[in-house]
Amino acid sequence: MATEREITFYMKEALKEARDAALMNEVPIGAVIVHDGQIIGRGHNMRERYQDVTYHAEILAINEANQALRSWRLENCELYVTLEPCIMCSGAIINARIPRVYYGAADPKAGAVHSLYQLMNDQRLNHQVEVHAGIMEAPCQQLLKDFFRAIRRRKKILKQKPNR
Amino acid sequence: MATEREITFYMKEALKEARDAALMNEVPIGAVIVHDGQIIGRGHNMRERYQDVTYHAEILAINEANQALRSWRLENCELYVTLEPCIMCSGAIINARIPRVYYGAADPKAGAVHSLYQLMNDQRLNHQVEVHAGIMEAPCQQLLKDFFRAIRRRKKILKQKPNR
Repeated sequence: MATEREITFYMKEALKEARDAALMNEVPIGAVIVHDGQIIGRGHNMRERYQDVTYHAEILAINEANQALRSWRLENCELYVTLEPCIMCSGAIINARIPRVYYGAADPKAGAVHSLYQLMNDQRLNHQVEVHAGIMEAPCQQLLKDFFRAIRRRKKILKQKPNR
Repeated sequence: MATEREITFYMKEALKEARDAALMNEVPIGAVIVHDGQIIGRGHNMRERYQDVTYHAEILAINEANQALRSWRLENCELYVTLEPCIMCSGAIINARIPRVYYGAADPKAGAVHSLYQLMNDQRLNHQVEVHAGIMEAPCQQLLKDFFRAIRRRKKILKQKPNR
């Protein structure tokens, strides 16, 4: 179990990843995976850049952690992610047997940890995940709000016709 | 909508993939993705070989199809897979907006299409999937049964002590 200071530290690292996504015009979501106090996997959403639907922050962090440990099992790891995981990423986290997840903002439309489903607490599956929600929620959410506001603003500008 | 003959043809291709997995000592599950009558993505479970938890048949087929179409959206595609998709793969299929899925055997322990969840028919999500289950169910299931029987047999042999 991480201390409050560690939790803040690692979520800030996930936020750095999310900001990198925003810089590349990707929906700003970031994730890191920690093992024995070391970050062994990190990722940010790169779906648009690579046109690959599986390139969510969590999946990329999991891929990297699998390589680092040379194991598909991430049994002594913690995952930190700025947004509540979707169905796909929740499934990957469960498949990898990650025991603990910390996330920032809730995702009412697609979140599968608390919002639409409670996949990580399904006793029928052979693995359950301890989840801590709302970690640094405000900055995680703000990053997303700013991103979508900028998209809407850009669309509006594109509709304007020059007066000449 | 594929004809019955086409459905059988593509599921046989998915079965070929599954057999390749078995040859490599991976749980025999295979998948293909079809677009305009062409297979544009194929994959079989390679989790053990690469020690990557996301290397399920469906994910690998989706990655390949994304590359083939240079798009994360697989809107005019059909996915054929020998086993009912898990949570992770169902999420990936929904995220990719694949409109139609054909699967072979049910997976009572981890299936997320009919068995544990009905993720592909959730009206709260922005995409629903038309699903056809039980396609060539017998050979899809037999392949898995043979695989797990061989594993159990191997374990038994390993326990035996030579009489000398």
